[in-house]
Amino acid sequence: MIEVVQYYEDYNIGDQRTTPSRTITETDIVMHAMHTGDFFPHHVDAEFAKKGPFGQRVAQFSLTHSIGIALTAGKVNPKAFTYGFERLRFPNPVFIGDTITTIVTIKEKKDDPKRPEYGQVVEACEVVNQNKKCVSYSEHVLLVERKEKNII
Amino acid sequence: MIEVVQYYEDYNIGDQRTTPSRTITETDIVMHAMHTGDFFPHHVDAEFAKKGPFGQRVAQFSLTHSIGIALTAGKVNPKAFTYGFERLRFPNPVFIGDTITTIVTIKEKKDDPKRPEYGQVVEACEVVNQNKKCVSYSEHVLLVERKEKNII
Amino acid sequence: MIEVVQYYEDYNIGDQRTTPSRTITETDIVMHAMHTGDFFPHHVDAEFAKKGPFGQRVAQFSLTHSIGIALTAGKVNPKAFTYGFERLRFPNPVFIGDTITTIVTIKEKKDDPKRPEYGQVVEACEVVNQNKKCVSYSEHVLLVERKEKNII
Amino acid sequence: MIEVVQYYEDYNIGDQRTTPSRTITETDIVMHAMHTGDFFPHHVDAEFAKKGPFGQRVAQFSLTHSIGIALTAGKVNPKAFTYGFERLRFPNPVFIGDTITTIVTIKEKKDDPKRPEYGQVVEACEVVNQNKKCVSYSEHVLLVERKEKNII
Amino acid sequence: MIEVVQYYEDYNIGDQRTTPSRTITETDIVMHAMHTGDFFPHHVDAEFAKKGPFGQRVAQFSLTHSIGIALTAGKVNPKAFTYGFERLRFPNPVFIGDTITTIVTIKEKKDDPKRPEYGQVVEACEVVNQNKKCVSYSEHVLLVERKEKNII
Amino acid sequence: MIEVVQYYEDYNIGDQRTTPSRTITETDIVMHAMHTGDFFPHHVDAEFAKKGPFGQRVAQFSLTHSIGIALTAGKVNPKAFTYGFERLRFPNPVFIGDTITTIVTIKEKKDDPKRPEYGQVVEACEVVNQNKKCVSYSEHVLLVERKEKNII
Repeated sequence: MIEVVQYYEDYNIGDQRTTPSRTITETDIVMHAMHTGDFFPHHVDAEFAKKGPFGQRVAQFSLTHSIGIALTAGKVNPKAFTYGFERLRFPNPVFIGDTITTIVTIKEKKDDPKRPEYGQVVEACEVVNQNKKCVSYSEHVLLVERKEKNII
Repeated sequence: MIEVVQYYEDYNIGDQRTTPSRTITETDIVMHAMHTGDFFPHHVDAEFAKKGPFGQRVAQFSLTHSIGIALTAGKVNPKAFTYGFERLRFPNPVFIGDTITTIVTIKEKKDDPKRPEYGQVVEACEVVNQNKKCVSYSEHVLLVERKEKNII
Repeated sequence: MIEVVQYYEDYNIGDQRTTPSRTITETDIVMHAMHTGDFFPHHVDAEFAKKGPFGQRVAQFSLTHSIGIALTAGKVNPKAFTYGFERLRFPNPVFIGDTITTIVTIKEKKDDPKRPEYGQVVEACEVVNQNKKCVSYSEHVLLVERKEKNII
Repeated sequence: MIEVVQYYEDYNIGDQRTTPSRTITETDIVMHAMHTGDFFPHHVDAEFAKKGPFGQRVAQFSLTHSIGIALTAGKVNPKAFTYGFERLRFPNPVFIGDTITTIVTIKEKKDDPKRPEYGQVVEACEVVNQNKKCVSYSEHVLLVERKEKNII
Repeated sequence: MIEVVQYYEDYNIGDQRTTPSRTITETDIVMHAMHTGDFFPHHVDAEFAKKGPFGQRVAQFSLTHSIGIALTAGKVNPKAFTYGFERLRFPNPVFIGDTITTIVTIKEKKDDPKRPEYGQVVEACEVVNQNKKCVSYSEHVLLVERKEKNII
Repeated sequence: MIEVVQYYEDYNIGDQRTTPSRTITETDIVMHAMHTGDFFPHHVDAEFAKKGPFGQRVAQFSLTHSIGIALTAGKVNPKAFTYGFERLRFPNPVFIGDTITTIVTIKEKKDDPKRPEYGQVVEACEVVNQNKKCVSYSEHVLLVERKEKNII
């Protein structure tokens, strides 16, 4: 975890970074079922999953999202904090043994309606598997301090 | 986990259900840091947190969201599946020992632009603590099979 | 978890329900060894197990019993509580990857010698694997409130 | 874990041993809920438990039994194996922070109806807390090889 | 995790860095007992520990060492790998709730007797608690690629 | 865990014992990454590891050391405590599914420079895999009480 100070003005649309990767193991899926308490058969019943559309167990959406976003946490900006997430989608399944990576692209910058000292930065977070297929997409909206705060 | 069949037509705007509750313990926060690999000091460094705005460690957003949504999983509808989440927000922090509950309200119903056999049902998911303060809000968009599919 | 009120009078001998299923993974066996602190080679030493009667590692009895009974917890009766368990047996081994399900049958009803306001209901809990072989059997004795309490 | 060879003839009624002890922490209760998938409010909802008969969360029966029996596993007899458990009871609750110990007493020895080369040894397993109150009782029935096998 | 390329020549004796911090919770100690299988009463029996020299449970040495070294892993040098550790000591105990930080100081540089293309860099790793007391000391010996490899 | 009292005088150079064994599963490696927070790709990124020198993921050094030493904890000597570890090395990798065992040999006995009532006993701890290859070596230095304390 490295701290890098970045003000609103320092973000450029189109900037992109790629995180380290992580293999989603059976352990991850079982532990996420345990932790959340959601034991849906799609995740923890191999016999049921065998007969389903994918022929095998799949990772939970909240697992893919939680780990996908946590992969971006190697770099921390003390001038920014999370406002929320938009448009969370899961276009493809994650199977046991898939390796995921997150690609973060600065997608949009805009004024915050209520906080003149901050601007909103929208990071498009694409979690992809080892075949470059997108398994989770979301837009992470950050509130970032402005360098120049006295805009009158 | 109880299976209850519900078609698009069976959802009524304003319908509401309240889930069982769960206390978010230090164990949950430590395990979520472990599982996601995000060891931000706000969650795992008590000395740092003592000097922060809350005076103590706080739960991760993805923990609150993951468990908050998993609490709704006691009732399963085999005719519905997750399309995505919108407007994920975290208005108040969750502290060690807080007890959370999710209130699910049917907020909106609309046609799906690409799939005439399905409709979109939007569930507003409000996760509240023991003082009825909202700690996480999101809109869970479901695709739900329609009873009457031949709309020409 | 769904709450369903059932008085002693509402139980009928022969009533049966089948729980959701769960695959017992290597993760479950390793975590149960960790949690209980029992690292018997039958469960955690693959080389030892290879030479044993089953040719592979087997799940712990207390894992099979704990998860087998927990699978029945989707339906909760606020009028009943556990008195104890009888005749706990483990007729067949559980291997990594086996999927277990619990079949609960109301086997017996009888007066409680000390508590006239309650009756004893005996649930036969058969945990079976994907080949319908019984891997754990026990009799769960419940104390259940009677509707009619003034028997004089 | 120490291996000690003991034949049926080597067990004496009344022999007793006391295991090491272990404190049942909040972590143990939360992890057992996770592992089994049983999130009953008595174990994981502090607000609910506050209003209940004990005024606080209690450990799961299967946690107390699983750890109580695992504590006895420091000494292993390669000539014995588990036949089953009888009369499993939970006379007192286990609270967060209680320290449990298991007292094993040889209670009974008897012929096995089907296996002349083995005898049944019944170990009374009393799990007690730091105040010597019994929190779990069970009778662990072992099948133990006989030294003298040719009884004709 | 940030990758920073550093050759043998780039290390300077006396260079120092301080890692992020982490609070060692009861969860960490219980999970480490579980993971390693070492349930010594000093770590998991609160009643025993109450009567010991520290009056409370203490963290395992291997926990303090494992987490203390892992805290240094935020910065990775692809030109270096671990040769081993020397002089591992534990001068003060770690209690539940203590917050640890690792201070890494380049202590020594020397030729490797067998590998002319590498040099040995010794990092003194001091793990300190929130009161700046050293709880673990070790010397992490790295083999680091030299920029100039053809020294004849 | 069995307590065996041994004074300094009772240790003999060359004495050797072999611990029970344990298979290092994917679960162990994933959980150790989680617990320590070190998600190096060598341990948790199967795609990266596929292209590395071993063609697969390897266990963390601190995992091998922690479990290797914990395996020796079945026998406890209340007259001894850990002074430190020397010469920690990792000559061969541990892969998922390898089974490790620790061989403890009394290597050296010497006076402690500051504590006349104790002597130092050096245990060479060799952790070997199922093919008898050494995967971790360290020298565990113990301070052991002397039977005869008044040496003047």
